[in-house]
Amino acid sequence: MAGNTFGKLFRLTTFGESHGSAIGGIIDGCPAGLKLDFDKIELDMRRRRPGQSVIVTQRKEEDAVEVLSGIFQGVTTGTPIAFSIANTNAKSKDYSHLKDTYRPSHADYTYDAKYGIRDYRGGGRASARETAARVVAGAIAKQIMKDISITAYVSSVGNVCLDKHYTELDFDNIESNMVRCPDTKTALVMEEYIRGIRKKGDTIGGVVTCVIKNVPVGLGAPVFDKLHAKLGMAMLSINAVKGFEYGSGFAGTKMLGSAHNDRFLKDFTTETNYSGGIQGGISNGEDIYFNVAFKPVATLMQKQDLLHKEGRIVTEQGRGRHDPCVVPRAVPIVEAMAAMVLVDAWLQARTDKI
Amino acid sequence: MAGNTFGKLFRLTTFGESHGSAIGGIIDGCPAGLKLDFDKIELDMRRRRPGQSVIVTQRKEEDAVEVLSGIFQGVTTGTPIAFSIANTNAKSKDYSHLKDTYRPSHADYTYDAKYGIRDYRGGGRASARETAARVVAGAIAKQIMKDISITAYVSSVGNVCLDKHYTELDFDNIESNMVRCPDTKTALVMEEYIRGIRKKGDTIGGVVTCVIKNVPVGLGAPVFDKLHAKLGMAMLSINAVKGFEYGSGFAGTKMLGSAHNDRFLKDFTTETNYSGGIQGGISNGEDIYFNVAFKPVATLMQKQDLLHKEGRIVTEQGRGRHDPCVVPRAVPIVEAMAAMVLVDAWLQARTDKI
Amino acid sequence: MAGNTFGKLFRLTTFGESHGSAIGGIIDGCPAGLKLDFDKIELDMRRRRPGQSVIVTQRKEEDAVEVLSGIFQGVTTGTPIAFSIANTNAKSKDYSHLKDTYRPSHADYTYDAKYGIRDYRGGGRASARETAARVVAGAIAKQIMKDISITAYVSSVGNVCLDKHYTELDFDNIESNMVRCPDTKTALVMEEYIRGIRKKGDTIGGVVTCVIKNVPVGLGAPVFDKLHAKLGMAMLSINAVKGFEYGSGFAGTKMLGSAHNDRFLKDFTTETNYSGGIQGGISNGEDIYFNVAFKPVATLMQKQDLLHKEGRIVTEQGRGRHDPCVVPRAVPIVEAMAAMVLVDAWLQARTDKI
Amino acid sequence: MAGNTFGKLFRLTTFGESHGSAIGGIIDGCPAGLKLDFDKIELDMRRRRPGQSVIVTQRKEEDAVEVLSGIFQGVTTGTPIAFSIANTNAKSKDYSHLKDTYRPSHADYTYDAKYGIRDYRGGGRASARETAARVVAGAIAKQIMKDISITAYVSSVGNVCLDKHYTELDFDNIESNMVRCPDTKTALVMEEYIRGIRKKGDTIGGVVTCVIKNVPVGLGAPVFDKLHAKLGMAMLSINAVKGFEYGSGFAGTKMLGSAHNDRFLKDFTTETNYSGGIQGGISNGEDIYFNVAFKPVATLMQKQDLLHKEGRIVTEQGRGRHDPCVVPRAVPIVEAMAAMVLVDAWLQARTDKI
Repeated sequence: MAGNTFGKLFRLTTFGESHGSAIGGIIDGCPAGLKLDFDKIELDMRRRRPGQSVIVTQRKEEDAVEVLSGIFQGVTTGTPIAFSIANTNAKSKDYSHLKDTYRPSHADYTYDAKYGIRDYRGGGRASARETAARVVAGAIAKQIMKDISITAYVSSVGNVCLDKHYTELDFDNIESNMVRCPDTKTALVMEEYIRGIRKKGDTIGGVVTCVIKNVPVGLGAPVFDKLHAKLGMAMLSINAVKGFEYGSGFAGTKMLGSAHNDRFLKDFTTETNYSGGIQGGISNGEDIYFNVAFKPVATLMQKQDLLHKEGRIVTEQGRGRHDPCVVPRAVPIVEAMAAMVLVDAWLQARTDKI
Repeated sequence: MAGNTFGKLFRLTTFGESHGSAIGGIIDGCPAGLKLDFDKIELDMRRRRPGQSVIVTQRKEEDAVEVLSGIFQGVTTGTPIAFSIANTNAKSKDYSHLKDTYRPSHADYTYDAKYGIRDYRGGGRASARETAARVVAGAIAKQIMKDISITAYVSSVGNVCLDKHYTELDFDNIESNMVRCPDTKTALVMEEYIRGIRKKGDTIGGVVTCVIKNVPVGLGAPVFDKLHAKLGMAMLSINAVKGFEYGSGFAGTKMLGSAHNDRFLKDFTTETNYSGGIQGGISNGEDIYFNVAFKPVATLMQKQDLLHKEGRIVTEQGRGRHDPCVVPRAVPIVEAMAAMVLVDAWLQARTDKI
Repeated sequence: MAGNTFGKLFRLTTFGESHGSAIGGIIDGCPAGLKLDFDKIELDMRRRRPGQSVIVTQRKEEDAVEVLSGIFQGVTTGTPIAFSIANTNAKSKDYSHLKDTYRPSHADYTYDAKYGIRDYRGGGRASARETAARVVAGAIAKQIMKDISITAYVSSVGNVCLDKHYTELDFDNIESNMVRCPDTKTALVMEEYIRGIRKKGDTIGGVVTCVIKNVPVGLGAPVFDKLHAKLGMAMLSINAVKGFEYGSGFAGTKMLGSAHNDRFLKDFTTETNYSGGIQGGISNGEDIYFNVAFKPVATLMQKQDLLHKEGRIVTEQGRGRHDPCVVPRAVPIVEAMAAMVLVDAWLQARTDKI
Repeated sequence: MAGNTFGKLFRLTTFGESHGSAIGGIIDGCPAGLKLDFDKIELDMRRRRPGQSVIVTQRKEEDAVEVLSGIFQGVTTGTPIAFSIANTNAKSKDYSHLKDTYRPSHADYTYDAKYGIRDYRGGGRASARETAARVVAGAIAKQIMKDISITAYVSSVGNVCLDKHYTELDFDNIESNMVRCPDTKTALVMEEYIRGIRKKGDTIGGVVTCVIKNVPVGLGAPVFDKLHAKLGMAMLSINAVKGFEYGSGFAGTKMLGSAHNDRFLKDFTTETNYSGGIQGGISNGEDIYFNVAFKPVATLMQKQDLLHKEGRIVTEQGRGRHDPCVVPRAVPIVEAMAAMVLVDAWLQARTDKI
């Protein structure tokens, strides 16, 4: 119940604190017989890694994934795939001042209140470093469903928004710039914008959009486990996420039903896709697309008021190595969580019929 | 895995099709010793009920809840609470024309594709009638945590938006109008707006806002089962929901970290509450608030193109009794799902410490 | 967590107290497309029913199963199958004397200690009447895997033991006598034995043996969810069960490995079957067979000492309608639980490979 | 669903193959605030370790437990406790001959049939080495419930049976002999017996008895999750286990109800304890005791017929380092599984009442 497991049939359990000896996870339920491409895991890990560009945190994390079990001669065996990633670059001394103080909009206070103890170094379990384990599992999940493509990108940073529908974009451009925005012009504006914010020691939020193509019809479930409900929970479980919308989303609330309904074509596809590829919680074969809202990172390189355990305010200058904007590095995490949701639904769908 | 169970410790499993003999559910894990107030269940059922006002569907559903087990002399015994609600007003003849055709933006096609069979009468399992069972369970969940107040209301209908923060509103007004908007003026505009849409046989979406007060510090979990992730999944599992945001939400993506961070006060509360009462997935004692986006209802009282199973388009005039706007009746459903998430988290929190 | 759900993919949640308005359950995860034979459900219900012969309890329970959902035109739809069985013959007045007293070797005291409240009428939730819901679900589970045969029978009553291996028995004889022992001679001795015990107002235990044939190779799981571990838990969850052994069982502890090992034949079957059809937790295609030990029923038609809540001993004469020996009626319950375990494993096995 | 997780609130997920780089596990749900005594973990690991005496396998496994997370300054933090144990002594060359052959009464064939692939080295995932992870988790579980004592011992080896009730034994003697039998005389007979069997390259089964004292009243659940059903499943999930009985067990089937019923005393204890400390699936405060049947180890140091994948019989001389009798080393594993079941039930019981 402690909530460190995700999924029902394809299950990831993660472990690890930011400054413990390692983080990692166990994947239980990965089907046997998958020849793993480790380069693809490595590629997604690099996309998530700190220090990959000047607009993200300059921490250096090696993030070398060591697989401990479940793979024999490069092929999954159906047994648990355990993996660990050593915390080689953990500078614990950076955090000792946080032992008795709570930073604003961090999990310091709530952890202490809940558990009566916390590993205060680097955010401990609340650190986004935990998401590295998700990226590993997601990179494996992606390989299971080879026909499905899952592509995420940055669609806004603060007020700089990419005002194009995903169908107008060339996804090949996503990895060509630091921000992971498929529109090169907008990407440059975003980049400049983030640099400016970084200089002031401030941070900014943004939106990641994700598009999933070639989803088989019939994934998901009718009631509580609707496919979009699972996707929503997956995204909202990523650090700093404040919102999720799919298909027409919040804008759809302003539409008339006569405009919103997706008219069927004779080939069982639909003319429009306000439904976002999901009807009644079940995929209909159209593209699934959704937006994920990320708040500005709470760690600032500015002076801030902290709360001491004993109830007094302490002013401190923010230090350490942090992201001025988290969305570029969040792109592979969004993809990873989406991949896990889909694989889980895909395995479940094998039991739909007699 | 079929997804008809919600929750981990306080678990609701629902059953029933719109035009079967009954719908209902089993609550497993309701703590023993709760003296139930059945009037409160009845009240929430009335708030969800069709036909309660001229702006919602005029179907008459009795919705009498029959409790079959788990309660002895008015008190919960710790054993499963089963309940059923007979489908007394089901007019099956209304739906026979849907046997071989798929309505746009409904679950007809996806159910058939997934299961190879569907109860086509009144939407079958995909009907929002299923939510009646959630309201029963939610009304019980609300009674477990007596100090917590959960209040939902309509904050927008189409383009008619209530542009006030929840702290400026008088929640006592919510039930005083048909729309369940706490601002009487706006409520009237919304009502008029819905009447107009209804006349044209069209439908419109809207947003329900929910505010939870007096939440104990420490509910939720750090990683996958973050409190807001659970709330998000709960809301997205309600029929017609397209989006969820909590705290600063999508608007928060446009804020600087220096503005977004919630400064601590000496009493461990925060000056602002962009965090929405949750930090690191765990409640911090501030108000939890969130928005839920509902799309326009797909069933129109207009001519529409349907897809016949054999791949031809069939034009039909919409019939039956349906909501022009679902949000007024969605208010108690949002509250019910929120209540179940909180009770589950509240029970789980009992196991946090040694 | 309250433990009223059984299974992972084929999930039965039961509800109901002995003297509430009804008992029943919800099956979630039954695959769609199964044409149900209701006569087979009815047949198993009759085999479990009280009053079926002079050696079992003479309570009359109608046990009419009302299906509320999940079946359309006689075929499963993939949605939850809810069913209820009205408690028409509940004589609550029989039990009022138990309000404040605890019977020996019953669940009266432990329920009160755990929950602080209990429905004392007829054993409440602890009544074996709950198993009727299992028989319904098991009868459906049996129909899913048509090739598999699951046959249980009484192999001992007290000291009267059927000293034949199951392969020497004619299962067609099982239903031909009141005891459900396939050896007619032994059956008569058992019957006479039970009659004698009944006359004295006493009760006796016994053993049910179950044989499962035509199990596909590959059902089960390697570690915690070994197929026999699931079978064991299923059987031990039946009222009055004190032990479970499969294959060579307790007798196997006295064997040498050289004798116990099942030599392979060239067709991948084995010469002997001490393994009981399961190796490493996974079915190997040989017959699965196991024994289930039932203690003597705790309710006696004799004078007994009860404990009053206030800590004094109260002597009472046992009354009501009870089984002198539970094993004849336990036969269909054992089969039902076995069927549910197998269907669950069979569905899970669909996700083993890529 | 792949079954590598045990428990609901205190959850152990294990990983690892016998000859992979490591085995280990993640404990999710361990309450925060427990000061861990690592010596106690080490002690139980030593009791399970191969090579500890001349009557068990002479493999040398270091079994050094490395804790990777979840513990800060020696205290549990409520976050997942991950640990790994390196496979330092794996002699993979010993097993290459098993690549294409199936040993009798091993999991070779069933794994291959289920997954289409297996790590054949040292039994892979089916190796009892996996139980080392259980012992780690069990040793932590034992520390959570400090008042409860869990003691297992060997009560029979083949036909050499300890014919004394547990109440007549001095548990302090258990660790004083190689066999872990509390009766020193019987222990010597067992030891001699095992030595003789070992010389012939054969193996023998046995029974482990476990006694749990000071269990609080009210642990367990009424229906499917009965405390003894959970204990049974836990035990049956241990390699080589063929049976489980608690309280009066199989012998109880031969008793009359009038003799079997445990008469209450005025202090709410019972005169006898045929119930084995559990009534209606819920602990009643009396000692819980049960027997676990282990078959003879399948690996013999004799010539045996193996089945080649292609359907021909291959005769091979058994090699390697194996136990002639598994029960002495099974003692701490039985205790570990019992501890996990109890802690899980103990945490669940916190949610019984309002």
